[in-house]
Amino acid sequence: MQASQSASPPIPDRSALADRYLSTRGRSVDLCSPLALEDYGVQPMPDASPPKWHLAHTSWFFETFILSEHVEGYQPFHPAFETLFNSYYNGVGKPFPRVRRGMLSRPTVAEIVDYRQFVDEHLLLTLPELSDELAARVLLGLHHEQQHQELLLTDIKYNLGNNPLRPAYNSKLPDPAGGTLALERIAFDGGLIEVGCAGGEFAFDNEFPCHQQFLAPYSLANRLTTNAEFQAFIDDGGYQTASLWLSEAWDWVGRESINAPLYWADDGSEYRLGGSGARVANAPACHLSFFEADAFARWAGARLPTEAEWEHAAQTTAIEGRFASLAPDDPLHPQGVSCVPAQEKLAQLFGDVWEWTQTAYGPYPGYQAAAGALGEYNGKFMSSQRVLKGGSVATPPGHIRCSYRNFFYPADRWQFSGIRLAFDR
Amino acid sequence: MQASQSASPPIPDRSALADRYLSTRGRSVDLCSPLALEDYGVQPMPDASPPKWHLAHTSWFFETFILSEHVEGYQPFHPAFETLFNSYYNGVGKPFPRVRRGMLSRPTVAEIVDYRQFVDEHLLLTLPELSDELAARVLLGLHHEQQHQELLLTDIKYNLGNNPLRPAYNSKLPDPAGGTLALERIAFDGGLIEVGCAGGEFAFDNEFPCHQQFLAPYSLANRLTTNAEFQAFIDDGGYQTASLWLSEAWDWVGRESINAPLYWADDGSEYRLGGSGARVANAPACHLSFFEADAFARWAGARLPTEAEWEHAAQTTAIEGRFASLAPDDPLHPQGVSCVPAQEKLAQLFGDVWEWTQTAYGPYPGYQAAAGALGEYNGKFMSSQRVLKGGSVATPPGHIRCSYRNFFYPADRWQFSGIRLAFDR
Amino acid sequence: MQASQSASPPIPDRSALADRYLSTRGRSVDLCSPLALEDYGVQPMPDASPPKWHLAHTSWFFETFILSEHVEGYQPFHPAFETLFNSYYNGVGKPFPRVRRGMLSRPTVAEIVDYRQFVDEHLLLTLPELSDELAARVLLGLHHEQQHQELLLTDIKYNLGNNPLRPAYNSKLPDPAGGTLALERIAFDGGLIEVGCAGGEFAFDNEFPCHQQFLAPYSLANRLTTNAEFQAFIDDGGYQTASLWLSEAWDWVGRESINAPLYWADDGSEYRLGGSGARVANAPACHLSFFEADAFARWAGARLPTEAEWEHAAQTTAIEGRFASLAPDDPLHPQGVSCVPAQEKLAQLFGDVWEWTQTAYGPYPGYQAAAGALGEYNGKFMSSQRVLKGGSVATPPGHIRCSYRNFFYPADRWQFSGIRLAFDR
Amino acid sequence: MQASQSASPPIPDRSALADRYLSTRGRSVDLCSPLALEDYGVQPMPDASPPKWHLAHTSWFFETFILSEHVEGYQPFHPAFETLFNSYYNGVGKPFPRVRRGMLSRPTVAEIVDYRQFVDEHLLLTLPELSDELAARVLLGLHHEQQHQELLLTDIKYNLGNNPLRPAYNSKLPDPAGGTLALERIAFDGGLIEVGCAGGEFAFDNEFPCHQQFLAPYSLANRLTTNAEFQAFIDDGGYQTASLWLSEAWDWVGRESINAPLYWADDGSEYRLGGSGARVANAPACHLSFFEADAFARWAGARLPTEAEWEHAAQTTAIEGRFASLAPDDPLHPQGVSCVPAQEKLAQLFGDVWEWTQTAYGPYPGYQAAAGALGEYNGKFMSSQRVLKGGSVATPPGHIRCSYRNFFYPADRWQFSGIRLAFDR
Repeated sequence: MQASQSASPPIPDRSALADRYLSTRGRSVDLCSPLALEDYGVQPMPDASPPKWHLAHTSWFFETFILSEHVEGYQPFHPAFETLFNSYYNGVGKPFPRVRRGMLSRPTVAEIVDYRQFVDEHLLLTLPELSDELAARVLLGLHHEQQHQELLLTDIKYNLGNNPLRPAYNSKLPDPAGGTLALERIAFDGGLIEVGCAGGEFAFDNEFPCHQQFLAPYSLANRLTTNAEFQAFIDDGGYQTASLWLSEAWDWVGRESINAPLYWADDGSEYRLGGSGARVANAPACHLSFFEADAFARWAGARLPTEAEWEHAAQTTAIEGRFASLAPDDPLHPQGVSCVPAQEKLAQLFGDVWEWTQTAYGPYPGYQAAAGALGEYNGKFMSSQRVLKGGSVATPPGHIRCSYRNFFYPADRWQFSGIRLAFDR
Repeated sequence: MQASQSASPPIPDRSALADRYLSTRGRSVDLCSPLALEDYGVQPMPDASPPKWHLAHTSWFFETFILSEHVEGYQPFHPAFETLFNSYYNGVGKPFPRVRRGMLSRPTVAEIVDYRQFVDEHLLLTLPELSDELAARVLLGLHHEQQHQELLLTDIKYNLGNNPLRPAYNSKLPDPAGGTLALERIAFDGGLIEVGCAGGEFAFDNEFPCHQQFLAPYSLANRLTTNAEFQAFIDDGGYQTASLWLSEAWDWVGRESINAPLYWADDGSEYRLGGSGARVANAPACHLSFFEADAFARWAGARLPTEAEWEHAAQTTAIEGRFASLAPDDPLHPQGVSCVPAQEKLAQLFGDVWEWTQTAYGPYPGYQAAAGALGEYNGKFMSSQRVLKGGSVATPPGHIRCSYRNFFYPADRWQFSGIRLAFDR
Repeated sequence: MQASQSASPPIPDRSALADRYLSTRGRSVDLCSPLALEDYGVQPMPDASPPKWHLAHTSWFFETFILSEHVEGYQPFHPAFETLFNSYYNGVGKPFPRVRRGMLSRPTVAEIVDYRQFVDEHLLLTLPELSDELAARVLLGLHHEQQHQELLLTDIKYNLGNNPLRPAYNSKLPDPAGGTLALERIAFDGGLIEVGCAGGEFAFDNEFPCHQQFLAPYSLANRLTTNAEFQAFIDDGGYQTASLWLSEAWDWVGRESINAPLYWADDGSEYRLGGSGARVANAPACHLSFFEADAFARWAGARLPTEAEWEHAAQTTAIEGRFASLAPDDPLHPQGVSCVPAQEKLAQLFGDVWEWTQTAYGPYPGYQAAAGALGEYNGKFMSSQRVLKGGSVATPPGHIRCSYRNFFYPADRWQFSGIRLAFDR
Repeated sequence: MQASQSASPPIPDRSALADRYLSTRGRSVDLCSPLALEDYGVQPMPDASPPKWHLAHTSWFFETFILSEHVEGYQPFHPAFETLFNSYYNGVGKPFPRVRRGMLSRPTVAEIVDYRQFVDEHLLLTLPELSDELAARVLLGLHHEQQHQELLLTDIKYNLGNNPLRPAYNSKLPDPAGGTLALERIAFDGGLIEVGCAGGEFAFDNEFPCHQQFLAPYSLANRLTTNAEFQAFIDDGGYQTASLWLSEAWDWVGRESINAPLYWADDGSEYRLGGSGARVANAPACHLSFFEADAFARWAGARLPTEAEWEHAAQTTAIEGRFASLAPDDPLHPQGVSCVPAQEKLAQLFGDVWEWTQTAYGPYPGYQAAAGALGEYNGKFMSSQRVLKGGSVATPPGHIRCSYRNFFYPADRWQFSGIRLAFDR
């Protein structure tokens, strides 16, 4: 959550907050509307939660941290939900085991929809009277819900894309476009720069405090690595060449028999939310693990950027991209580009794929987690993960910013994650 | 399947077979009617398949072994179903991994209902023209479906009974009755006896050939072990006394922290298909593993019967019991008894709980599995399992007989399985 | 241990018992004499204990069950040894974890030799005054030690045979001979026969009581299955043909990538205690699991014998064989035969390889385990294992008899275990 | 290995190098001299290799990277050793599985001593004629051997300290002393500082290149955290308080039932290389994982230092400490201190315990691994590990420096690893 450290986020007025609450909450339900009822309950791997769990957990967040804690006389919708839909907050009690989320046929989807409405009604009723601190907490809950909106799309994709029938999430989605932009290195001077959130807008606690870092000169690729470029790595035996891989990565490749990005099939097709289709050569490679991104970069004679390099390069770039718009012409898949936007140095920084950095996810100097259970939001995961930047096509519009720090384990690849090369100079 | 060895089963005439087909197939769907749609897809442990998988697999059986193999011009409902709903027949190809059955949100329940109707229409169309051999195979398919009807109930119970909300399968089911019958030992002389199926009725291949065994004199308990008796074992520290347990069993108790029958709660209640309710002291203890049954018998100064002892004792007993009748007054749970039925020696032989025997499941002398993939039906499981006899409250009426051989691994306890004590004399 | 049930074993007079004690105890040490000191401590898999552990545990047996329990004033050699060298007797306390036996560099071999001498001195001192019951227990301890002598050889073989350097246990051992005996089926009428030990000699508790069984007519192969015959199974794709294997077996073959008997190398050689050498075509195939024996028999159109069939056939056969003689001309490996011994029906019944039966290891009717911790000797392992008969080249002379019941898990194959085919007739 | 990047290390003249070779190689053997022969072969956990493996692998390093690669006509001591004693260099072939190192009773210790002598003779013979590049590689091999000397001590300690008999490595070692120095915070201004090796001395490739980092002002504790301070954390329920732990750490605490530092016993004693003895209240706490160090720091209202903070603070400090001297008065265990050395700001920086930093182990900007298999030395482990600084009582004298980067996984605690607190200011 936002820290009190350097700068307070602006608290929206209560009426604007209520509007935002309604639209954000509604969008979660809308994202699920193409699903069959059966799709709401499946957990195809421990990390990919069932859609109905996401719908319940995001409601749990408002119920637990606002209604139950702070609204006098509030009676929870169901006494068992505090445990059932607690994701990982030990301060709230012992969460229901994550690996068993897909074994809960009850509550039904209809009951969870009722739960959402119950929470929404009570929240909206109390919203005008909430203190600034609690209103800020509502805002945090909406950003939290947006994070789960991205997970809804990636978890649904993992379920459907691993089903032998390969059903589309929405068969009307268009195919992604290709592009013609040639790869170039864009130089940055580095020096003493600032990273992190300076305040003035909402940000999570892990983006604070804004602080200085020193960077040597470096270059970044002007665009993302494409499917064609990644195919060249494969064709060159990349997955069979131990010297390209970190030791942990090489173990992972052997143990899991990894030989292509997730969702790539042997026949040249890939699974997209629109269904199976031919891979687009100049579209960005995605669904790559850090391990694969790192090996590809080594093969290419390059490296992955550090978080600070990426953030510094992005600080002057407008945040535009192909976020999960739910518009009928959005393929919900990254597309190629043919030019760098005017006034920008780099293409595809925001809203295409999450870009792996080499930076291990850790606290900024002076980082303070929030007090109480909400302090578990981000801080306790600062171990063994890597930072990703820039958002993806599954990220909700308005959710991303330069200082945003996403983090996943190095073998994770069910997010829309890809590669921007970096170079010393 | 039935063997050609000693005696051919009677082939029902085609019209009677069609009636039987319709009623058996319909009963599978009826068993699921109390479910929420969400309940059809859940696999709460690897051994407990989703209800919709059972509905599909039983159709797959008729499609694979009759329609696809023997009906000219038949086009399968869906090309992927041959693999998706193959349980374990390596002769049919590589089955979809059992542990992932609960991760298939597609095909939907509606699609599987369509699949059932498609298979039914084609099967009924071809039935009048089938050879005797194939008509016998249809009969086998119906007995196969009855086995899955029992699994439907036990798998549904496992799912709902392990859900923290403990929803009832059918909340209108009555509570089980108790009973007052005192425990007695009923003596049998043994000698050279016959076990197995002598023919004249349907039986699975593993019940053939009928053959002689020699038995020393023995006694059996006149009724099943009750909840109260099993509670006395617990109160005496049974689960903490190594000397009562087989070595494998003791490891299991420690590893799985077992300290009570499945579905027993600390507050004296148990989960039944009708929901949670107080345990009935004189109702049969059930949902016990072989390991627990064997330890209890040792604690009681007794032992478990051999299969031959049980079968010999049952050969003169009428097959009456509390099978899964779907009648509104059937609790779908074993009940106590107050007397031994007239003309019988033993109470509760059929249709209460499956009774663990000490006999390892293996082939009878001269056993021959069927040719082809159907030979995988029973024979390949003759390793590390124990025989159970007598059927349970979840067994379909008409499905049980003296020679019937059920088999499960010694730690399995999600079936309605219990204890009848035996004694040397 | 021997049961009091049907007949008491003869108690040797104390002087003969002392002689036997000395020779048996000495033989354990002699078996280890070819080893390097480093070989005494290695545990190459959980089931294969380090030689020094065997040397200590067999001493622990006498110390625990005679000296500590029954000799007034006896002070154990070391207080920690009661736990360290307890194999599996929960009645004596919590055994040191089996899987960590190879991680005990201390006590050293020299300390264990001291332990043996300490126990021997005290045992021999007290022996003349022991009651008949305790003298019988000493006899049991010597049979126990003989069992560990066989394990010493097989565990040493497993260690050295899996070491990449393939060092010989004793490089002077001769190669095994071949043979010319053609395979024939020898018919037995069956009927009401007796199995188990009738008394008059030492036997373990699991061989009692002697009892009747009824057998249908059957045939047994006149000799063991040879390497050449097993090679034909392999050449015919036996390891790749699912229909030949039990379901558990097929899982094992795939999971462990099994494609030949243990110790067979791709170049036609095998590892023997004398070192690597060319396989002898007509010598018995050995180091086979039950799973492999069962699959081979199915491929050969035969089956494995039941324990009762084997025992009945062997009851008129003299117990002669190639037991672990430690004579310089003993290859410590099974050899081929060219004729059936005069007055016998079957060759190679005793002292070649342990012959897998299809019989699950379980209690005989009326079986009673001994009281106290010694009751854990045999009875608690009557689960998921199969009976083997006849002894092997690693069995000490004088240790085997018709009623002897060895037992191992169906995937175990580091013993000298092989195949004698059986047939219905 | 040292990089050519910024500065070449001084190549010792050949005669000095030969002297250094002899003394370093001899020291490895000397470290093992207190062992029983049985202790050389044991691998008590996958990460702790047998002493004889260390003795062989360090010889393998010289044989593989100098003799076999660069000396014409050199015949390896044994053809199997290239694989057997390859630790993790995929460029040299497929290493023998790490987890099975303790299952190799052969080669014997005597054979490995012969191997060492064979390698030494050939290396010393060729040394005068080696190119500067290969002489630098010999120097690298000696630093490599010193790293294994530390592992010898910690692996031996793990073996003996987990043996139920708790034998001493050397029972004559004195007990560690306590100390009286009060805890203080020493302030540093930070700013633009330099980290990494500037050249002029030997350093590993991961210490290059020397580069700038920007640090905010910070403080470090003037001494290490003591046993008494860590005991207060335990007494305050530290191991039971989820909010103090990273998420991965909390899982580890629960899964492994961690409730005290490694080697601490419930009776107030600890195992040291000198045997079990009372814990010394003011001696440094050691054998702590990163997870424990991080939780302790959070409990103490502090944090762990970053690598750059530690290195900057240490740059003006003389490298003196209690390294593994093998002198009779060295307890081979960290001791307390009563004052900060004159001219220093901080006590116990070098040679007491490795100090966990919060810094994830990764490449310095511009890092280049060596070409060929030697490039696997350090670079491929830059994933999921944390940096430790300063050396320990088990580090060989002369092996440590400010820029030295040790790295272990966050749950590892069999090294002499401890805590220096850091603070924002």
